[in-house]
Amino acid sequence: MSERVAIMTSGGDSAGMNPAIKCATDYAIANGMEPYLVYDGLRGLIDDKIKKAEPEDVSGILHRGGTVLRSSRSKRFFDYDMRAVAYKNLKDKGIGKLVVIGGDGSFNALNQFHADFDIPFAGVPATIDNDIPGTDYCLGVDTALNVILNSVDSIRDTATSFSRAFVIEVMGRHCGYLAMVSSLACGAEICLVPEIDYDLDQMGERMRLEKENGRTYLIAIVAEGVKMGDYLTRWIGDTLKMDARLTVLGHTQRGGSPTVRDRIMAYHFATNAIDSLQRGETSRIMTYQDGVYGTTSVREVAEGKAVMGEKLLKLCSPLCR
Amino acid sequence: MSERVAIMTSGGDSAGMNPAIKCATDYAIANGMEPYLVYDGLRGLIDDKIKKAEPEDVSGILHRGGTVLRSSRSKRFFDYDMRAVAYKNLKDKGIGKLVVIGGDGSFNALNQFHADFDIPFAGVPATIDNDIPGTDYCLGVDTALNVILNSVDSIRDTATSFSRAFVIEVMGRHCGYLAMVSSLACGAEICLVPEIDYDLDQMGERMRLEKENGRTYLIAIVAEGVKMGDYLTRWIGDTLKMDARLTVLGHTQRGGSPTVRDRIMAYHFATNAIDSLQRGETSRIMTYQDGVYGTTSVREVAEGKAVMGEKLLKLCSPLCR
Amino acid sequence: MSERVAIMTSGGDSAGMNPAIKCATDYAIANGMEPYLVYDGLRGLIDDKIKKAEPEDVSGILHRGGTVLRSSRSKRFFDYDMRAVAYKNLKDKGIGKLVVIGGDGSFNALNQFHADFDIPFAGVPATIDNDIPGTDYCLGVDTALNVILNSVDSIRDTATSFSRAFVIEVMGRHCGYLAMVSSLACGAEICLVPEIDYDLDQMGERMRLEKENGRTYLIAIVAEGVKMGDYLTRWIGDTLKMDARLTVLGHTQRGGSPTVRDRIMAYHFATNAIDSLQRGETSRIMTYQDGVYGTTSVREVAEGKAVMGEKLLKLCSPLCR
Amino acid sequence: MSERVAIMTSGGDSAGMNPAIKCATDYAIANGMEPYLVYDGLRGLIDDKIKKAEPEDVSGILHRGGTVLRSSRSKRFFDYDMRAVAYKNLKDKGIGKLVVIGGDGSFNALNQFHADFDIPFAGVPATIDNDIPGTDYCLGVDTALNVILNSVDSIRDTATSFSRAFVIEVMGRHCGYLAMVSSLACGAEICLVPEIDYDLDQMGERMRLEKENGRTYLIAIVAEGVKMGDYLTRWIGDTLKMDARLTVLGHTQRGGSPTVRDRIMAYHFATNAIDSLQRGETSRIMTYQDGVYGTTSVREVAEGKAVMGEKLLKLCSPLCR
Repeated sequence: MSERVAIMTSGGDSAGMNPAIKCATDYAIANGMEPYLVYDGLRGLIDDKIKKAEPEDVSGILHRGGTVLRSSRSKRFFDYDMRAVAYKNLKDKGIGKLVVIGGDGSFNALNQFHADFDIPFAGVPATIDNDIPGTDYCLGVDTALNVILNSVDSIRDTATSFSRAFVIEVMGRHCGYLAMVSSLACGAEICLVPEIDYDLDQMGERMRLEKENGRTYLIAIVAEGVKMGDYLTRWIGDTLKMDARLTVLGHTQRGGSPTVRDRIMAYHFATNAIDSLQRGETSRIMTYQDGVYGTTSVREVAEGKAVMGEKLLKLCSPLCR
Repeated sequence: MSERVAIMTSGGDSAGMNPAIKCATDYAIANGMEPYLVYDGLRGLIDDKIKKAEPEDVSGILHRGGTVLRSSRSKRFFDYDMRAVAYKNLKDKGIGKLVVIGGDGSFNALNQFHADFDIPFAGVPATIDNDIPGTDYCLGVDTALNVILNSVDSIRDTATSFSRAFVIEVMGRHCGYLAMVSSLACGAEICLVPEIDYDLDQMGERMRLEKENGRTYLIAIVAEGVKMGDYLTRWIGDTLKMDARLTVLGHTQRGGSPTVRDRIMAYHFATNAIDSLQRGETSRIMTYQDGVYGTTSVREVAEGKAVMGEKLLKLCSPLCR
Repeated sequence: MSERVAIMTSGGDSAGMNPAIKCATDYAIANGMEPYLVYDGLRGLIDDKIKKAEPEDVSGILHRGGTVLRSSRSKRFFDYDMRAVAYKNLKDKGIGKLVVIGGDGSFNALNQFHADFDIPFAGVPATIDNDIPGTDYCLGVDTALNVILNSVDSIRDTATSFSRAFVIEVMGRHCGYLAMVSSLACGAEICLVPEIDYDLDQMGERMRLEKENGRTYLIAIVAEGVKMGDYLTRWIGDTLKMDARLTVLGHTQRGGSPTVRDRIMAYHFATNAIDSLQRGETSRIMTYQDGVYGTTSVREVAEGKAVMGEKLLKLCSPLCR
Repeated sequence: MSERVAIMTSGGDSAGMNPAIKCATDYAIANGMEPYLVYDGLRGLIDDKIKKAEPEDVSGILHRGGTVLRSSRSKRFFDYDMRAVAYKNLKDKGIGKLVVIGGDGSFNALNQFHADFDIPFAGVPATIDNDIPGTDYCLGVDTALNVILNSVDSIRDTATSFSRAFVIEVMGRHCGYLAMVSSLACGAEICLVPEIDYDLDQMGERMRLEKENGRTYLIAIVAEGVKMGDYLTRWIGDTLKMDARLTVLGHTQRGGSPTVRDRIMAYHFATNAIDSLQRGETSRIMTYQDGVYGTTSVREVAEGKAVMGEKLLKLCSPLCR
């Protein structure tokens, strides 16, 4: 009997999950495995929403945002008895391996599951926050960045027409990656992120000088992690005497049809995950670091710290003060 | 000497203003007039930011959002002495007529200007709120609707992936047009607008029934005019026991490259405005009503009330209860 | 027993078909009918690819281009015996009425079917060619126009960068509607369509004058019906001494997520089609003319001639010479 | 006096040129240089279309496709006397260094110019063909890929609706990179590129098998370099008995607003180019290889050969037979 592998998505959704599901499924078949699909994430493992993958399940999904397998955050999975139920569900179907597409929380949960029941898994990093240690890239980031870009380009139309300041809050939890990259890409004048100390006094001086030299509008991008959206908006109004508005981009950043980059990264990560399982490894997380695809251990992910590129920090620093 | 006409934008910006500027300029030349451009709206009239239109001023702007002439809201223009300055600026350049692209507030200001100094003007309705009496369409509406559509389609990716409710607040000031049309176009389950009484009890019943029949996610679109975004989000969480999030779309709705419809409507409105001035009329506002292009008086705009189509109200009513 | 109605798409696909399918299905249920879906168009009627519509069949399709029911052009349907098979398939399922979403060829086929077996139908006009007599609008046109717009805006980037002429051939069969509207919306310098005589000598004079006045690039849009793409490209190279390239936009024009306008028109046409059948009418085609929704007879469609708006012809005439 | 550097674009245009122009200009100023802009490429060097860069020259261009400096292919620059004119133009303005954004042809021209007159230059690779030896990435590639993606996703709507085969020809001159990456990203069934031998017999077998298993449509992507578009389209019709259409995507691939990736790569390449000149280097071409930014010599570019990644070739091979 050919080896059976179940594919699932877990945690917050991101663009690129669907291509990863499709590629993992197709590549598993091409390599002699029998793929299964788990619906509703960890909850679906417990509730037995597991089915054999048919071609039509993953057909026509490459260009769709979100995840057709749906996702969830399941507290029940912290409970050993519930994990035992999940294990039984897999065992009953002869499934011995797992591919999980998600974030570090999901990887830890699966690692515990492996410790309990010896079910090997491979992890595909997928989160728009781009904050998983050991990899420079997580699925969904490029799509999120381009969604932000289009929104900021639109807002700039209004800003320039009306001589206004716009403060735009982007996602990323505790990580400023989305804010920093989109600030550079959009040519924002101000960028506030958790990774860099800001200096409002100096910033005020800089902007006043620019205003004197003819600047009539202003775009500021703030990471949600700094919780400065409201404050900065008022500050601009009070200090720079500009009409300032706050826009919180919200969940539009998670969706949208995956970009080429997210589809191609999904291709690499998903095929590497199947390869890892076929080599007999377990608890490896797929990575892309310094231009090279590889894997790292779930422990290193759990204990590591996402490192922001030096050059990115250097390029953004002038925008923080 | 050929007749001189000044073209300006005023009030909130909207997509379609740039095509209107270009078409009015080109058509004025083709009809033997000499077009001028006023920068910064009413403020620019007072501050004499008025220049002869050169081809390069309006070249390559058809596809750009916002307004290259910039806009403003000017309190000074309420002051007769300031209007007298504006009049002198126009008179010094031999400009005897005006095309103003904007909303009803701007039309009223220009009408007062006409009463004071006998400068005829023609108005092109442009506001994403679509709330100008006497016309079914204002420039910028179609672009705003398609921006909303793309955002909601993106959010739906996340909603379906995560079994979540999303409440999306759209613009429109006191008018529910954007909310109603986008609700139909996006297939929203709930729509709250100022024009229709809502019934939360009945809505709760309806949604509970749908949940029992398998509904796992929910999209609600609310007009900013009802000020119900926060409340509805909490209500969905409390009453329907769904994880609910609020997204305020904000100023992305104003921008973006104008759609075909906004460019074509701009073409019609702008050429009709020049025609109106050449017929010797004044204070006429361009309209599109029941499929026919025409004009109405500024008084009818000021005293009238924007009427929402019966069919639109009927189609949306089930979404309000 | 509630009345059963089958919904189908036929002929060339266009954006807006999916929203029409969904709206017709939902509205039929809301009005006490039992909707069925026919897959593969006329061929599916013969081959009995007919099934009761379940909510999941039409869920999540509003934003998708093409038609989930698929379409076809069936020669077999010209054969009475085959139509008899189709009739038996419907009768066996108790289906007594049809909604067909497609073009005039499909309407004629269904009209013959009605003459043979007395199965009433209602037609929803859907074709990007916008050439169905009796209606100003067919589903898919607005989406096609915006796809063309985006392509031409992109090509203009290259044209202006490189001082080049681009000839862009757009769809429309014998009808120049897409070419004319997109020429206005994109600010094309030249437009060739079947409806307007062109004058290359005069055009050459006009363009030479513009070149002398500083024009460095040129966009020409030609309707496929005039078959002039290759010739015009060479003519521009030879006569105007400009580096000229031809781009045939092709089938990208048919696809894409439906715009707001196509979704809203689909809503109106589909609900009107169900209303027409419930009023006991047959062989009525849904229309939108001079801003008013209505119906016309299939005969008038068959014998009529699509009339191009006078104003559109007048606005485009200068681009043809 | 601060050092003067001229910035120019040359050769075929691509998205990302404008961000590179803006970043090079801003970064030069920030590093104490005085930037100049050359319009019309090499031709502009000869014709003295060179001006001091003012902030407004590069303001608001980050999101625009093409190049605001325009480009050209100049035969006159092969002539020493013409180059001498170009040198005099630069010398008269005190310009001693050049940044050229373009392809290998342009780099060679500038290298000859350097050999003649000792004007150091730095090259920024920009071409959608992605065929410059020594770098894995050239500006414009990511934008072109996403334009192709959107077109193919649109065409797929039609293909699935109508049970059709579509052959889509993409750019790339002699290089199959665009075709290969877009084939993976779009899930194409067939991909023909110059780098991989194809086997039509085997391909026929594979597709016949898929047809028997239910495949009703087919997407084939061919690189323009193989010149197989027409032939493959007929072959599909004849051999697979499917209705097949050819779409040549053409110049839409060059344009469009630059993606985040192209803007960020432009940032890195442009700042690195200024750094290279300030280090006193000459004739260095900016590179990104195996995830690392660096430089290579113009000789290595001229004599090298673009190497296609092994993994990409391996992933695409099954699509060629």
